[in-house]
Amino acid sequence: MPETFSVGLLGHGTVGAAFAELLRERAEGVEHVTGLRPELSGVLTRSRGDFDDILENSDLIVEVMGGLDPARDYVLRAMQAGKHVVTANKQLLARHGEELWECARNNGVQLRFEAAVGGVVPVIRVLQESLAGAHVERVTGIVNGTSNFILSQMAEHGSSYAEALAEAQRLGYAEADPTEDVNGADAAAKMAILARLAFDTPVRLDDVRFEGIDHLTADDMQYARDLGLGLKLIGTAERVDGGISVRVHPAFLYPGHPLASVNGSFNAVTIESDAITEVTLSGPGAGGSQTASSVLGDVISAMIPPASTPETSESLPIVEDVSNAFYLSMEVDDQPGVLAQVAEVLGMQGASIKSVLQRGLGTHARLTMVLHPLLESRFYGAVQLVSRMVYE
Amino acid sequence: MPETFSVGLLGHGTVGAAFAELLRERAEGVEHVTGLRPELSGVLTRSRGDFDDILENSDLIVEVMGGLDPARDYVLRAMQAGKHVVTANKQLLARHGEELWECARNNGVQLRFEAAVGGVVPVIRVLQESLAGAHVERVTGIVNGTSNFILSQMAEHGSSYAEALAEAQRLGYAEADPTEDVNGADAAAKMAILARLAFDTPVRLDDVRFEGIDHLTADDMQYARDLGLGLKLIGTAERVDGGISVRVHPAFLYPGHPLASVNGSFNAVTIESDAITEVTLSGPGAGGSQTASSVLGDVISAMIPPASTPETSESLPIVEDVSNAFYLSMEVDDQPGVLAQVAEVLGMQGASIKSVLQRGLGTHARLTMVLHPLLESRFYGAVQLVSRMVYE
Repeated sequence: MPETFSVGLLGHGTVGAAFAELLRERAEGVEHVTGLRPELSGVLTRSRGDFDDILENSDLIVEVMGGLDPARDYVLRAMQAGKHVVTANKQLLARHGEELWECARNNGVQLRFEAAVGGVVPVIRVLQESLAGAHVERVTGIVNGTSNFILSQMAEHGSSYAEALAEAQRLGYAEADPTEDVNGADAAAKMAILARLAFDTPVRLDDVRFEGIDHLTADDMQYARDLGLGLKLIGTAERVDGGISVRVHPAFLYPGHPLASVNGSFNAVTIESDAITEVTLSGPGAGGSQTASSVLGDVISAMIPPASTPETSESLPIVEDVSNAFYLSMEVDDQPGVLAQVAEVLGMQGASIKSVLQRGLGTHARLTMVLHPLLESRFYGAVQLVSRMVYE
Repeated sequence: MPETFSVGLLGHGTVGAAFAELLRERAEGVEHVTGLRPELSGVLTRSRGDFDDILENSDLIVEVMGGLDPARDYVLRAMQAGKHVVTANKQLLARHGEELWECARNNGVQLRFEAAVGGVVPVIRVLQESLAGAHVERVTGIVNGTSNFILSQMAEHGSSYAEALAEAQRLGYAEADPTEDVNGADAAAKMAILARLAFDTPVRLDDVRFEGIDHLTADDMQYARDLGLGLKLIGTAERVDGGISVRVHPAFLYPGHPLASVNGSFNAVTIESDAITEVTLSGPGAGGSQTASSVLGDVISAMIPPASTPETSESLPIVEDVSNAFYLSMEVDDQPGVLAQVAEVLGMQGASIKSVLQRGLGTHARLTMVLHPLLESRFYGAVQLVSRMVYE
């Protein structure tokens, strides 16, 4: 029996429940990587569980209850008891980060919080570890998925703000009370955390100016389109004249800007520094299983501080014949019905045409097509049949 | 005096020289994060330095000499001597990874290799750490910057392959002998490493099928454009029918695909897994200072295994008045010269117009403009002057 590693879970809402399930599902994989078998030592909800009991029986505490009180007290007490803590609580970190980080340093424990910013986007780890040696100049981010979803809806469908918000609520991308998401406050808390890490300077939440998207109109989107620009809710943390500026507001992005193509409920963060130029990370900004996955990555890191590449645990065969959506371009006689004949021969091999261009070139024509996915072996079989038909 | 941490450097080409400089430049920052003062203990080049001397005097070895021999021997001997190793050598890992990782595990040292794949893109850390608990389904990447630069040139300027390659060579994005970059072999080595980490199964370099971009023509790009698709050199590692497939070939990407907007010499990798949906990382794929920055991130991680958030080292002021490229939309009388008047008033505040739309609405017109960047205080001053002019 491997040694176990006990995880106490504070909070059992969407993220908490998803984390409990993911931990069970991935227990074997975690054991392979860490050598320790993870198990839930207890769950604290509003109606059940006792914090002191859970703390005593845990090697690590996961805090996904949200709110400041009692989360702050629990996180501090866990670290004072020598336990690592993984939290997804952005408000807690934005308001009490220095106190919590100091407590972690003083007690020699890890406080990890990847899930607090950017959903599945691993921006905390990249800032704290990959770029620990970089002099970061600027962090720019789309860090609120609800706002980005609403703006994407407005841009794509010409909807009004109210229509897009209603759609976001219908699909579960916005809460019944979306205030903090759409007025920029949620993004401001996240940018305060990112600025603190990027510039190694204290950032109070009150220092972050924010403006949301709740006053934008379909006209604004139309003007953006007319100007050839995209409109996004952007958080910026940057060095300015020996100081810093941290702010959140709607901004136009030129096409080709690394955040311009981030649509729907996705989040993305671009980090700029002289040495690296820039790096952009993007992915789903929320969702129970996504956030739970960020939490699990942090839990595993706390279990095995030094990164190592474990022995392989699988011995998977290499599959040679895989499906692809192939592209096929051929010169054919410019006769009526040639496309139909080609399509028929392709169809005999199970290949069907997704899109096609036919272009005459004097006596010849060129057929260019993209096929629906099919096995490579089938595709080459079809090509052989077609070339016999076309060239013989 | 803080304790020092000695780094032995094998190789002093573009990356080695950039790393030596970056380490000197960032020594203070590294000391703040790690509590140790980093210093170069020695540099091995073809003409100077002695490996055994350097090894004896180092806490960690950075291998950026490239090639298999003697790099493999040096890396093994360093780890056997109990030293951590950071390497940027993709060929070494793709061919001898299992031997090297086993050696690292047996000697209880870290072998880090972020710089081997993706330039500044932190895909190794994200796969090994953030996603250590995830069941990865697929990794898709643009992992050769030279090929991507050439394809971007062909797509943007309608150049032939030969013209685009010549331009890449002129700008330093392609070597004098670009074979390995353009025939897919370099990308294949990188995908072999990513597949090994993603699926936890041994992947031999010979298992990776590859096809490059050296046979593509301006016509192919034209057809792609006509079909509304982009054409990129894509590496794919995916689970298929209980096995895996790892391959590199040119592929069409639909608009909105996370890799479709990755242009120039940038690299990007998308990792898919049920729990996270997908995460995409992108950034410059090569360059001395970029690769050196990845190496430095690894060195720092080896210096301080457990991640922690250090005390703030700065106390930067918050700058309230920052420059932005503002957007201004106003209703004006539809009279000749109104735009010129507005422009003049804006100019008095130092605001100049970058782009403008004028649209008549019966007796009124709407002027919508994007300004060149200016201080916020100036912008609001200008808005005040303009509104006095327009409304009084």
